[in-house]
Amino acid sequence: MKKYVYDFEQGNRDRKDLLGGKGANLAEMTNLGLPVPPGFTITTTACREYMRTGAFPSGLMDEVTKHLRILEKKMEKSLGDPKNPLLVSVRSGAKFSMPGMMDTVLNLGMNDKAVKGLAHQTRSERFANDSYRRFIQMFAKIVMGIPGEHFEEVLEKAKKAARVKDDSRLKVADLKKLISSYKRLVRKHTGTTFPDDPIAQLEMAIEAVFKSWNGERARIYRRQNKISDDLGTAVNIQAMVFGNLGEDSGTGVAFTRDASTGAKKYLAEYLPNAQGEDVVSGARTPLSLDELKRRDDKSYRELTKIMSKLERHYRDMNDIEFTVEKGTLWMLQTRIGKRTAAAAVKIAVDLNKERLISRQEAVLRVDPGSLDQLLHPQFDPKGTVDVIATGLNASPGAAVGKAVFDAKRAEVMAASGEKVVLVRPMTEPDDVGGMYASQGILTSRGGKTSHAAVVARGAGIPCVCGAESLKIDLTKRQFTAGKATVKEGEVISINGTTGEVVLGEVPLIEPKISGGLQTILKWADETRRLKVRANADTPEDAAKGRQFGAEGIGLARTEHMFLGSRLPIVQRMILADTEDEEKAALDELLEVQRLDFAGIFEAMNRLPVTIRLLDPPLHEFLPSSKELELEIQRLEFESIGASGEERASLQKEITTKQELLGSVTRLEESNPMLGMRGVRLGIVKPGLYQMQVRAIMEAACDVKEKGKKPVIEIMIPLVAVREEFDLMREEAEQVIEEVLESRGQKIDYLIGTMIELPRAALVAAEIAEGAEFFSFGTNDLTQTAFGFSRDDIEGKFLPTYLERGVLKVNPFESLDQPGVGRLVQIATKEGRKARPGLKVGICGEHGGDPSSVEFCHATGLDYVSCSPFRVPVARLAAAHAALKEKGLGGSDSR
Amino acid sequence: MKKYVYDFEQGNRDRKDLLGGKGANLAEMTNLGLPVPPGFTITTTACREYMRTGAFPSGLMDEVTKHLRILEKKMEKSLGDPKNPLLVSVRSGAKFSMPGMMDTVLNLGMNDKAVKGLAHQTRSERFANDSYRRFIQMFAKIVMGIPGEHFEEVLEKAKKAARVKDDSRLKVADLKKLISSYKRLVRKHTGTTFPDDPIAQLEMAIEAVFKSWNGERARIYRRQNKISDDLGTAVNIQAMVFGNLGEDSGTGVAFTRDASTGAKKYLAEYLPNAQGEDVVSGARTPLSLDELKRRDDKSYRELTKIMSKLERHYRDMNDIEFTVEKGTLWMLQTRIGKRTAAAAVKIAVDLNKERLISRQEAVLRVDPGSLDQLLHPQFDPKGTVDVIATGLNASPGAAVGKAVFDAKRAEVMAASGEKVVLVRPMTEPDDVGGMYASQGILTSRGGKTSHAAVVARGAGIPCVCGAESLKIDLTKRQFTAGKATVKEGEVISINGTTGEVVLGEVPLIEPKISGGLQTILKWADETRRLKVRANADTPEDAAKGRQFGAEGIGLARTEHMFLGSRLPIVQRMILADTEDEEKAALDELLEVQRLDFAGIFEAMNRLPVTIRLLDPPLHEFLPSSKELELEIQRLEFESIGASGEERASLQKEITTKQELLGSVTRLEESNPMLGMRGVRLGIVKPGLYQMQVRAIMEAACDVKEKGKKPVIEIMIPLVAVREEFDLMREEAEQVIEEVLESRGQKIDYLIGTMIELPRAALVAAEIAEGAEFFSFGTNDLTQTAFGFSRDDIEGKFLPTYLERGVLKVNPFESLDQPGVGRLVQIATKEGRKARPGLKVGICGEHGGDPSSVEFCHATGLDYVSCSPFRVPVARLAAAHAALKEKGLGGSDSR
Repeated sequence: MKKYVYDFEQGNRDRKDLLGGKGANLAEMTNLGLPVPPGFTITTTACREYMRTGAFPSGLMDEVTKHLRILEKKMEKSLGDPKNPLLVSVRSGAKFSMPGMMDTVLNLGMNDKAVKGLAHQTRSERFANDSYRRFIQMFAKIVMGIPGEHFEEVLEKAKKAARVKDDSRLKVADLKKLISSYKRLVRKHTGTTFPDDPIAQLEMAIEAVFKSWNGERARIYRRQNKISDDLGTAVNIQAMVFGNLGEDSGTGVAFTRDASTGAKKYLAEYLPNAQGEDVVSGARTPLSLDELKRRDDKSYRELTKIMSKLERHYRDMNDIEFTVEKGTLWMLQTRIGKRTAAAAVKIAVDLNKERLISRQEAVLRVDPGSLDQLLHPQFDPKGTVDVIATGLNASPGAAVGKAVFDAKRAEVMAASGEKVVLVRPMTEPDDVGGMYASQGILTSRGGKTSHAAVVARGAGIPCVCGAESLKIDLTKRQFTAGKATVKEGEVISINGTTGEVVLGEVPLIEPKISGGLQTILKWADETRRLKVRANADTPEDAAKGRQFGAEGIGLARTEHMFLGSRLPIVQRMILADTEDEEKAALDELLEVQRLDFAGIFEAMNRLPVTIRLLDPPLHEFLPSSKELELEIQRLEFESIGASGEERASLQKEITTKQELLGSVTRLEESNPMLGMRGVRLGIVKPGLYQMQVRAIMEAACDVKEKGKKPVIEIMIPLVAVREEFDLMREEAEQVIEEVLESRGQKIDYLIGTMIELPRAALVAAEIAEGAEFFSFGTNDLTQTAFGFSRDDIEGKFLPTYLERGVLKVNPFESLDQPGVGRLVQIATKEGRKARPGLKVGICGEHGGDPSSVEFCHATGLDYVSCSPFRVPVARLAAAHAALKEKGLGGSDSR
Repeated sequence: MKKYVYDFEQGNRDRKDLLGGKGANLAEMTNLGLPVPPGFTITTTACREYMRTGAFPSGLMDEVTKHLRILEKKMEKSLGDPKNPLLVSVRSGAKFSMPGMMDTVLNLGMNDKAVKGLAHQTRSERFANDSYRRFIQMFAKIVMGIPGEHFEEVLEKAKKAARVKDDSRLKVADLKKLISSYKRLVRKHTGTTFPDDPIAQLEMAIEAVFKSWNGERARIYRRQNKISDDLGTAVNIQAMVFGNLGEDSGTGVAFTRDASTGAKKYLAEYLPNAQGEDVVSGARTPLSLDELKRRDDKSYRELTKIMSKLERHYRDMNDIEFTVEKGTLWMLQTRIGKRTAAAAVKIAVDLNKERLISRQEAVLRVDPGSLDQLLHPQFDPKGTVDVIATGLNASPGAAVGKAVFDAKRAEVMAASGEKVVLVRPMTEPDDVGGMYASQGILTSRGGKTSHAAVVARGAGIPCVCGAESLKIDLTKRQFTAGKATVKEGEVISINGTTGEVVLGEVPLIEPKISGGLQTILKWADETRRLKVRANADTPEDAAKGRQFGAEGIGLARTEHMFLGSRLPIVQRMILADTEDEEKAALDELLEVQRLDFAGIFEAMNRLPVTIRLLDPPLHEFLPSSKELELEIQRLEFESIGASGEERASLQKEITTKQELLGSVTRLEESNPMLGMRGVRLGIVKPGLYQMQVRAIMEAACDVKEKGKKPVIEIMIPLVAVREEFDLMREEAEQVIEEVLESRGQKIDYLIGTMIELPRAALVAAEIAEGAEFFSFGTNDLTQTAFGFSRDDIEGKFLPTYLERGVLKVNPFESLDQPGVGRLVQIATKEGRKARPGLKVGICGEHGGDPSSVEFCHATGLDYVSCSPFRVPVARLAAAHAALKEKGLGGSDSR
C-alpha cells in the first residue's frame, strides 16, 4: 500500500518533491532538534491523485487519522476535547514556494466543546471564543466558499451593537452571539450546519487545499514563475501554537540576512500578541526584532542562535516564521529566502568568503533572470523630482506610469500598451495578475515582508510600500499626499530603491554593474563555454556592450542609420527616376555610412562586429499612402475656395504629392514582414548592398590605418534560398576586392547569413556551402514558424492565449524549443556537417533570456548576442548552462 | 582517352543523354537504313567540359578532323575543294528538344575556292554565290556576333543598286559584290578577315553552338520547361543537302499525325526550292504535301512509307524534317512530335487500339501538365462576337487581354498583373519571355509549324497565327483588320481552337471532358494509389468537382459564405457591443450557413467533405480605415459650408463613421497574414466556431433525414500549437453532442487540422494525438517557410528572382521540395507515428501541379485536393507517379 502521510520526524529537506518545501523543511528542523510544533505532511502524490480522479486516494483519511492519533499522544491533547483540546493548522506546501497563492486553515478542531476546553487551557474565555469565531469565518470562506464580506457585515453589526470600534474590544457575550450569527449565516448559504466534527472539518480542509492548487491565483503565479501545473501541493497538519495569547506572546518573520541588500544582518519583523497572518498580510504594521529582545530576551537569544544554525546548516540565507507562545519560542517555517538580485549577488559572494560555498555554487546562487532587476533603470539624479511621499524601499528600481487603483484595470490598461503603476492600500493574492502587468507597485500599508513587497521583489518590479502619508480614495480613484492629488491616469514615478513617490514623470537612467556583480560575472566567465556578444547599432551602444562584457557585436543593424537627417537622402534614393539620381543618393549615403561603421569598428577594436545589410522594406522610409491621400484630399478642398494664384500653387503641391503617392502605392505591401525586404532588396536594387559593403570596407581601411584592428563579419539578412546568398556574396566580394586593391590593404572578413526563415533552416546544408557563419534571427524565425506577427498579436490574442494556457510563455521572450528550437538544431547540425567549424550564433532577443541561453549552449552554438543591458544576464546564464551540463545546480537554486 | 565524337552509324535513339535528341535520332534513322545525309555528333560531355573549363576538351578537334575525313570519304567530296567541295551543317541538339533556342550554321566550308566548286557541282554560279553570301551573313551573325541588321542594310543597298525588290533577283555579279561588301563589314566590325579555312570555321561554329546553350533564349526556355541547366548540348555535323537547287528540289516538315487534333493524318508542309529555315521561320507561307505529290510522286511515296515505318518503329507520332534535292529524298531529322493535349490524348488512345502501346504506356503518353490546355476556357457560344479576322487555329483555347505589340512590353505588363495578348507579324526566339507571359498570341504570318505556333502549343497558350488580313503597324502600335483599328492596350479576344480574332472582351466558359480523355482518365484511375479531391465552396463547384472525378471535397472554405448578402450580418457580429447583439448576429448566420452546408453535403452524398472553419482576419469583412478616414474628412469639409439642418445630419453621419473607424482601427493589422485569423479567431471569439460547427451538424442531420449520407470532416485552420487544436476540438465536440442528441441522430465525423505553419509541421506528433486528419495548406506553408507574402511578391521581386535564376520555379505553383516539402515529410512521418493511419492530404494549389502530385505520392499522402478543373490533371499525375514508382515512364514521354 502507498504511504501518503509522513510525520515530521520521517522527512528531510531533500524530499521536497514528495513533502513540498514547507513540509520538507519542517521535517529538517524537527530532526535538527529545533522547537517545531509537532505534525505531519500529506504528500504531493495524494494531491496529484486527487487532481486526476477527483477523489481522495483510498485509505487516505484512515492514514491521516492514524497520524492524528500519534500527534494527539505527543501533544497530550485530543481534537474536540472539552478539557484539553488539540487545535491544528492545515497549510498547503508545494515543492516551490508560492507565497499566499494557496489556502490555509487555522484553529481547526474548534467546536462547541473544544471552545470550552480552550478557555480552560488558556484561562481566557474571551480568547477561546474569539478564536472560535475567527475559525468559523476562515473555514466558511476558504473551505465552504462563502464570500468573506457577509461575515464582515455581521461583524460590523456586532461592533455597532456593542458600540466598539475595534473587534478586540468585543466581550465574551458579544463573541458568543457573533458565533451564533456566523453559524446561521453558514446554514443560510449552504443549507447545512457548520461541521462540528473535527475529522469532518479536517477532511474538508484537506480537500480545499488540494483544490486551491488549481485556483486562479495559483495558476497565474505558476505561469509567471514557470512552475509546472502537474506538481501538486502537499498538506501540512500541525499542532497550533498561539502568538495572540497576550503581551508575552507574539509572532514574527525574519530573513537571516537582508533580503533586499544582502547585508549580513537580520531583516526581521515582530508583532506582539498576534498571529502570523497579521504580519504577512500587512494588516498591522510590525515592529522590529528589538521589540522581542526588549520583552523577552531569552526567546530573542534562542531565535538568533537558531537563525545562525540554520544558515550554516542550509549554507544559505533563510526566511523563517516563528511564534512565541507565553514565553516559549516555536519555529513554524524555514525556507531558502527569496531575495533581490542585489542581495543574491552579495550573499553569494559573502558565503564564498565565509567558505560556506564554492565559486561555482556562488554563480549558481544568482538567478540570471533576476539580474534584470539590477539592470533596471534608476531616477536620473540630474532630473528635479517633486517627492510627494516616502515609503519603504521594498523592491529596487524606478518606475514611471499612470496611476491605476485596481489590479484588473491595471491588467487591461497594460494589455493595451499603457505603462501603469498600481496604487493600493495593500495588495492581496487576487491582485497578482495586475501586479505583474504594472511597471511599479505603490502601497500605503504593510512592511517589506508584506504581500506586495514579496511579490514585487520576486517579479523584479519596483515597489514602494507602507507609504502611510498617502490617502487613497478607491471610490474617487485618486490619492492625496500632502497638497498633491493624483487622479487615476495621471503619471507618477516611484523609486523602489529609495522609497520615494514622485509627481509626474522622472527621466530614468541606466544602471551600472556593482563590485559584487563583477565578481560573480568574473566567476561566470571562468565557467562558461558560450561567448556573449551585444546587439549594437552605434559606437555608444557598442562601447556600452563592451563595458558590460560583450565579446563582440552580434548584430549591428544598419536601418537605424537610415533615419534622422539621412532620411531625405534615403527617400531620394528610393524615389529616383533615373539611375544617375539613384547613384547620387547612394554616393551621399556611402559617405555617412562609412563614418557609422568606422565608429563601431573603433569601439570594438580587435573584437568581431557582425553588420547586417539593410533589412526593412523601403516603404518604411516613406510616408503612408493614407497620410498622403488625406493630405491630397485636404488640399483639393482648399483649392476649391482659393483664388487664382493660390489655386495654382495648391495645384502644384497636389501634383507633387500625387507623384509621391504613386511611388508609395507601388511600394506598399499588405504583409511587409513577408515582402520586399532583406536580401530581396539587395537583389532587386543591387547598388544598395554594394554601397553598404563599400562603406564597411572603406571604414575598415580607415580604422586600420589608425592602428586599430577591425574584425568584420558581413551578414546578409532574410535568405531563404541558397542562390540569394551566393549572388550577394559574389557582388560583395567584387566590391571588397576593388576597395582593398585601391587602398592597398589586406583585411580578413567573413560573409555569412541570418537564418531567420524556416526554409533557410531546412536547407542550411546548402546555404552553408557559401556562408561562413550563421546567425539565428529568432524573432523572425518565431514569427514565421508560428505565423505570428509580433506587432499584431502581442496586444491582441497573446494575452488570451497565455490566460487560457494555450501558450505557457510568450515565444518572443523565451525560445520555443519544440518548434523554433528544432529549426535551430537542424540548421546548426546540418550547416556544420556541410561546413565543419561553421560559426553559429543567435542574435534575436532570446539571446538574453536564460532558458534560451541554456538551449543555445546545449545546441552547441558559439555565441549568443543580446542588447547591451542583458549581456550580464547572458554571461551568467551561459555559466549556469555549463554547470547544469555537469550535473550541478539543483532545486535549492530557486 | 575519352571518345567525344560518334559517327551516326555508332549511335542509337537511347543515347540521348550523350548525343542529344537530334543526334540520337539521326543515328537511329541511319541504322534503320533511311536516307540520312552522313555525319557525326560531338557529345554533350564535350559541351559540359567546355562549360566547366571555358575551353574544348584536349584532342577534340583532332577527333573531329578524323571523323571529317571519314565523312569526306563517304561523300567523295572534300571541304574547301575547288572542284567538288563538301559543305556541312553544324547544328545544336540537346537531350530535350528546344526548338529554335540554340544556334545553327549552314553551308559551312564555303570559301573563295569552294564557291567555285559548288558552282561546278550544281551547275549554277548564281546558286553558289548566293549560298556563299548567305553563309557569310549567317556565320558573321551567329558565330562572330555581328548584329544582323548591318547585313540587312548592305543587302538593301545592293537590291536598290540592282533595282530589284526581291533578293532572288540579284544576279551573279551583284552577289559577288555583295560577298565583298559582307567581308569588308566583317573586317570593320572584328578587325580580322572572315575565316576562309573550313577547319577554322568549324571550330568557331562548334564553340558558338556550345555557347548558345547558355544564351538568354535557351535559359528562359529551359526554365519554362523545367530542363536542367547542366545537361549541355551535343553538336551535329552533317553533309549539306540543298532544297533550293530549283523546282525539283524543296524542303518540308511533317507530323506523322495531326499534332493539333491527333487525327490519323499527316500534318505536313512543303516549300519547293527552299531551305528548312524558310519553313520553320514562317518567312514564306508553305504549301501542303499534295504539292510534293504533284511535282514528284516518287519522293512523295517514299516519304509516306518512311513516316509509317518511323511510327511503327518509335510506336509514337513523329515530327520529321526532310529535303528533296533534285528528286532525291533526304531525312534531316525525326523526333517524337510535340502535340496539343487533345492530340496527345487521341494519339495515345488510338495507338492502344492499334495495339502498339499498352494502357499504362497510353497513360504515360499524356503529360498531366498539358491537360490544362483541354481544360482551358472557350468562348461562350451565347455571347455575341465581333470577328474582325480569322487565322490558323494554332494552339487551342480562348484568351482575352489587352493587345500588346512587343514581347518585352508584354512581359512588363503581365508582371504588373495585366492580361495581355501578344500581337506580332511573326515571333522570334528572342520573344519567348513575352510569349510565356501572355494570355494568347496572335500573328499575321507563318503556319501551324511556325515558331509562334510551336512555342504556344508547347506552353498551352492559345494562339492564332497567319491571320493575314491583319495589318500590323509596329511604329504606331496598332493593327487594322477591315474597318477595325486596335491600338495597344485595347482589349481583344482570340480563339485558338477556331482561329477567330474578336474585338473586345468575349465572355469565356469552362470546358467539358471529351471521350478520349475519359478513357485515359479511366485508365489512370485503374493505376493510381493517391485519391483526388476537389476544393469547392458551393454546391455547384462541388458538383463540378464530382463530375470531373473528385472523390470528395478536400477544402470547403467558409469565408466565401460570409460575403454578399450576408456581409451586413457578419459586420453586425464583428461590431457587436454586447453579447446579445453578437449572439443575434451569429444566430442569423447559423440559419444561412446550415443551408450552405446542406447543399454541399447533398451534392457530395457518400463522399467526404472537409469543411474549414472561418480562416481570414475579421477586418477583411469591414471597410478599410483609409476609406473611412477619407470619407470622414470629406464629410467634415462639407459640413463647414452646410446650413444648420444639413450640418446636424452630416455631424450624425460623421459620428457613426467615427465609431466604425474605431472598431476598424482596433482590428486592422500590419501583417494580417500573420495576425488574428484561423484558429486564433476561434479561441478569441468562441461563439463563431461553435456556430459553424452547429450549422455543419444540423445540416448533416437534415441531409441524412432526406436519405443521403453526409461524410463530415471538420478542419481547424492555422494551428501552430497543440493546445489550440485541443481546445477547439473540445468545444466542437460539446456542440456536436448537443445537436446529435437533440436530433436523435448518430453521425460519424472527423475533426482534424490544416498543417500550414512550419511549427505545426515540426510538432505534428503532438498535434496528431488530438487530430484525426492533417491537410497540408501548402500555400500558407510556402508563405511562412519562405517568408514570402504571395500578394506582395508575385508582381514585385518574383519575376526578377526567376529571371536571375535565384528560383527555378515559382514555389506557389510547384511545391518547393527541399524546404516546404521537407516539412510535409516530417509532419506526415511523425504524425503517423503518433497516430497510425492518420489521414493525410494536401489542399493547397499545389494539389493540381503534376510534380507536386508526384511528391505527394512519394511521401505517402492519402489524397490531393485541387480546384475542380485541375482534378483531371491530378488524376493523371497520380497515375504517372504510381507508374514512375514502378520504374515506368522514361525519356520518351517528353
